[in-house]
Amino acid sequence: MRISQLSAESGVPIPTIKYYLREGLLPPGEATSATRAEYGERHLRRLRLIRALLEIGRLPVASIRKVLAAVEDEETPLHRMLGTVHYAIGPDVEPHPDTAEWQQARADVDALIDQLGWAVSPNAPTRDELAQTLFTLRSLGAEAGRESLIPYARLAEQLVREREMATIPLDGPRDAAAEALVIGTVLYGKAFDVLRRIAHEAESARLLNAHPEH
Amino acid sequence: MRISQLSAESGVPIPTIKYYLREGLLPPGEATSATRAEYGERHLRRLRLIRALLEIGRLPVASIRKVLAAVEDEETPLHRMLGTVHYAIGPDVEPHPDTAEWQQARADVDALIDQLGWAVSPNAPTRDELAQTLFTLRSLGAEAGRESLIPYARLAEQLVREREMATIPLDGPRDAAAEALVIGTVLYGKAFDVLRRIAHEAESARLLNAHPEH
Repeated sequence: MRISQLSAESGVPIPTIKYYLREGLLPPGEATSATRAEYGERHLRRLRLIRALLEIGRLPVASIRKVLAAVEDEETPLHRMLGTVHYAIGPDVEPHPDTAEWQQARADVDALIDQLGWAVSPNAPTRDELAQTLFTLRSLGAEAGRESLIPYARLAEQLVREREMATIPLDGPRDAAAEALVIGTVLYGKAFDVLRRIAHEAESARLLNAHPEH
Repeated sequence: MRISQLSAESGVPIPTIKYYLREGLLPPGEATSATRAEYGERHLRRLRLIRALLEIGRLPVASIRKVLAAVEDEETPLHRMLGTVHYAIGPDVEPHPDTAEWQQARADVDALIDQLGWAVSPNAPTRDELAQTLFTLRSLGAEAGRESLIPYARLAEQLVREREMATIPLDGPRDAAAEALVIGTVLYGKAFDVLRRIAHEAESARLLNAHPEH
């Protein structure tokens, strides 16, 4: 297809497509003349992935480039490619204080992951992210330990195992797997967060025998 | 106790306590002379709540004032007071497009809540928040409907019913209930979100037979 059709099918304006081509985010089409190129399905898939990383993952162009390098390099195993996407869309972890309390929180996270039997890189930034939350809970005086996190971990495991990983097409094109991971992680994460807050309201109404206000 | 001790016990600096007193966020102590006042347990509890709303809920002072008004007014039923806290700490809902697709997403959210049998105010901002997520999913071409949200809703219900509401002291001081709600909603919400992403990495490793990298 021509660039105009690629724009129509993807919903991405032509100047934006040209910008992605210049930045090397989108591979060039097949040149059919000095001024024309043909684009195909893989360009459409790539545009969907770029849009997901940009609009849903809210990644800067430099991070998108890094993710796309892992997507394109077939030597990068799929698990590692998915990890690159995951780490890129996670929040920046705040620098942590070098205190005994922080070290304890981090050690508790490592022990929790061991106890769960989860295979997780020792360098995963999510370890620090969870330690930060545990540290904050404790600094507020909450009795938060491994035990209080286990029910959450078990629910997360159930959700991911029974439903979420099945939505990632692991044996199709790598762009499509990366796109599904971004959308699933960010948007279904948001959906769960708001459903949990709605459930709080409903449960509060039930326990306190209140009726919704009109 | 004197203001210096209130500061020591709460960890809140004296100038900050004086600022809260001037802003009316903290009720005045009992005057024992022209320049001295005595503070008690309720001042400590109030400082804990203000800190949670400010540092964890990240609320501006105007919103904190609104929450505290509901906490202080004993005529405001507990369920409604908790709702005020909940709505205040939720994200601002973006203005939504007035399109048939958006209306459909919102109608689907209302139908979902009915189907679940949850007692939720028709004016709850969380309804629009969930509709926004559903709308975004669909605009990306994802087949997202009520069915895809039900497993998330059931998990949220289980979590809130079996564990989370039990952490809110419903028969103690109202400040303490509000504080527990802020901490539980925000920090355990974060904990679940990061545990879910860690579970993704572990499940990806399991399915793809990969080993964590060192």
